[in-house]
Amino acid sequence: MEIIIAKNSGLCYGVKRALNIAKRTRRESAGKVRTLGALIHNPQVIRDLKIQGIDSIENLDDLREGTVIIRSHGVSPDIHQLLKRKKIRIVDATCPIVKKIQKLVALLAEENQEVIIVGNREHPEIKGLIGFSRGKGIIIENESQVKNLPYRKKRAVLAQSTQDLFLFEKVAAALIEKTGELTVYNTICHSTQTRQKSTSQLASEVDALFIVGGKNSSNTNKLYQISKRILSATYFIEQAEQITPKMLRKANKIGISGGASTPPEVLREAADRIKNSFQRQSQRENRHLCQT
Amino acid sequence: MEIIIAKNSGLCYGVKRALNIAKRTRRESAGKVRTLGALIHNPQVIRDLKIQGIDSIENLDDLREGTVIIRSHGVSPDIHQLLKRKKIRIVDATCPIVKKIQKLVALLAEENQEVIIVGNREHPEIKGLIGFSRGKGIIIENESQVKNLPYRKKRAVLAQSTQDLFLFEKVAAALIEKTGELTVYNTICHSTQTRQKSTSQLASEVDALFIVGGKNSSNTNKLYQISKRILSATYFIEQAEQITPKMLRKANKIGISGGASTPPEVLREAADRIKNSFQRQSQRENRHLCQT
Repeated sequence: MEIIIAKNSGLCYGVKRALNIAKRTRRESAGKVRTLGALIHNPQVIRDLKIQGIDSIENLDDLREGTVIIRSHGVSPDIHQLLKRKKIRIVDATCPIVKKIQKLVALLAEENQEVIIVGNREHPEIKGLIGFSRGKGIIIENESQVKNLPYRKKRAVLAQSTQDLFLFEKVAAALIEKTGELTVYNTICHSTQTRQKSTSQLASEVDALFIVGGKNSSNTNKLYQISKRILSATYFIEQAEQITPKMLRKANKIGISGGASTPPEVLREAADRIKNSFQRQSQRENRHLCQT
Repeated sequence: MEIIIAKNSGLCYGVKRALNIAKRTRRESAGKVRTLGALIHNPQVIRDLKIQGIDSIENLDDLREGTVIIRSHGVSPDIHQLLKRKKIRIVDATCPIVKKIQKLVALLAEENQEVIIVGNREHPEIKGLIGFSRGKGIIIENESQVKNLPYRKKRAVLAQSTQDLFLFEKVAAALIEKTGELTVYNTICHSTQTRQKSTSQLASEVDALFIVGGKNSSNTNKLYQISKRILSATYFIEQAEQITPKMLRKANKIGISGGASTPPEVLREAADRIKNSFQRQSQRENRHLCQT
């Protein structure tokens, strides 16, 4: 039995940075410290943050004081302005890569270009990006939505930083027919691209693959889809306890991968559970051999 | 039995225009009139032109006088200069759409951009286009060749005017991974796009489809590939005589399409041959019925 944890899997730079900023802010600030939305799509880490005194809030309606941490996904300029009007202290932990995409969207909007943003309409990063587009942005979730777009002489297309590269390529390809001059900005961050590549590489080498992460994590969902395209024995789990002996049946080589918000200890727990399950199984088999 | 000739098939504007320019030039010029390379990839038309006194030459080495017609594919600036040095009269019948692509390549090269040109290395249009790129152009024939390219922060990609849109999209999609900012110029001419679309539409509706045109016509070859992807009973023929009863067996609905260099009379001849073949077949069947 062999267990391989995918290279480049687990917590990305932007999420690690936001976690550090949040903890430092808590240490150094008086008054309440809240994150606007969950800082990371991982229930265990969110619990730990709560214990340390960092709560997460979903909207700003009743907020009147304290510090608000903008998570790595970033927010639209409206939210920034609202916080300023409310005189709430802002600590901006937007991932620097997302910040660059926000600036790109703003620049393209300033140039009066139509900007196609490839991502999930409900994802916080997309909600932020569209806010920078001054009404020039169009969110596209898949290539079939391109059919409804009119022909344009010129337009730009970019992606959510954690987008599935394959899907982004398909949307861009479909846009070619509809556009005279299409500028494609590959804004998928390097760590997402390498994570997707090493996960799909691993999926082609193992008998079963576990994608570990929050069910509401968009990039972890994409990893699952990428692996599932290659290996039908791909399982999406939030915690090690969800791994069952049935999932491991007939599997000798097992892979583990996690999204940008999956801490390394969660990956290790999954590996331990698989190891233990195998040990129990071989003990049972030995006992059976001795009895017969 | 039903025979359908694909909409938008046959001679395109650029080829028709070049033919008219050649004939007018012949009428209005003293001395020899030659085309540099075959004016059209169609043996019948080439024969007609020869009878009218318009010969085709393959290179300029021994040429010392007369008029040279540049065909719709265009030529590289080197050839223009060589003709000028030789003091040979040039009549430029380059398709206006190809001329626009040549200007685009020259402009991108002037801006010091790497330009990927998607097309067949041996195609005269590509040979012309690469000449405008001042060493900044790279010819790519299919998406697998993209693998060998290095990462670039910025590059541009465009296509031979008669390229297969599907192949162009695949190459552009593959380039996204290798490029930070990729500008995709959809330089496939409108008539090529509509011809490809109506041929693939027809391929999905008929029992057999005949692609009629010169075997050395790049765009006709592409039509054949496009149709073959959809309908295995696709046949590439140069002349009506190549249609055999075996090809028509079990086919009730038959399609015909031709490339940018296929004259309408060649398409009509194919339709007539199919009609006659069916009539002969039903006469045979009637006779057989009367005898039994």
